[in-house]
Amino acid sequence: MKNDNCIFCKIANGEIPSRTLYEDERYRVILDMGPATRGHALVLPKEHFENLYEIPDDWAAGALAAAKKAAVLMKDKLGTDGLNLVQNNGEAAGQTVMHFHMHIIPRYKNDNAHILWKPTSPSAEELDDVLRQITG
Amino acid sequence: MKNDNCIFCKIANGEIPSRTLYEDERYRVILDMGPATRGHALVLPKEHFENLYEIPDDWAAGALAAAKKAAVLMKDKLGTDGLNLVQNNGEAAGQTVMHFHMHIIPRYKNDNAHILWKPTSPSAEELDDVLRQITG
Repeated sequence: MKNDNCIFCKIANGEIPSRTLYEDERYRVILDMGPATRGHALVLPKEHFENLYEIPDDWAAGALAAAKKAAVLMKDKLGTDGLNLVQNNGEAAGQTVMHFHMHIIPRYKNDNAHILWKPTSPSAEELDDVLRQITG
Repeated sequence: MKNDNCIFCKIANGEIPSRTLYEDERYRVILDMGPATRGHALVLPKEHFENLYEIPDDWAAGALAAAKKAAVLMKDKLGTDGLNLVQNNGEAAGQTVMHFHMHIIPRYKNDNAHILWKPTSPSAEELDDVLRQITG
């Protein structure tokens, strides 16, 4: 079930436009607006679950498969050297939007990124360019 | 298929003893020996896949469900305030053992932990105590 007050529900269901790099029946993978590295993405379920504790097992099953699809795309299209998956639950763990999501953070040799990232502020053009390279 | 030279294969299949807090047909969840926080655990598949790119979709599906089982246990038994899941792929992303694994890092209010953690060195007794509290 969607939550009408949740921005990630709206994004996942296409009611708010996003830079989507993968989509299936249950999940949408979009570019993060404040990426740690080039290609940083978010895996969003189309129904509302607050966190790992609330997501049903059959939904949980699809999250990692969707992340894998995006990861393979990134490897093929962006030439990533690796990636981190990070999924935060609860304020104490740094969760800021209370809709289950998983970060996909592509890594590059000597990228100086930290898993505990500081967001960057790329322009819309730069974001569009990454999206094109991944989905093109 | 197991890899005879892989320590995580041996641990996952019970050939090397571990502090197991959850196990099912495909996965074993064990306490990490160098925890970021109290209860830090690893989700290990019993067959050998190097990373997210190599793990088949049906196996990937089980990883997050196993993590959830452990997370619920931790919440109920350790009184965690949240948790981070972190899954690293490739040396560039900080992967050190080349067998797919997912970190479950319980979080506590004001724990001062970082997702990019520094390992601690608890005694065997302290580790046993946490295990008992989780599985007891």
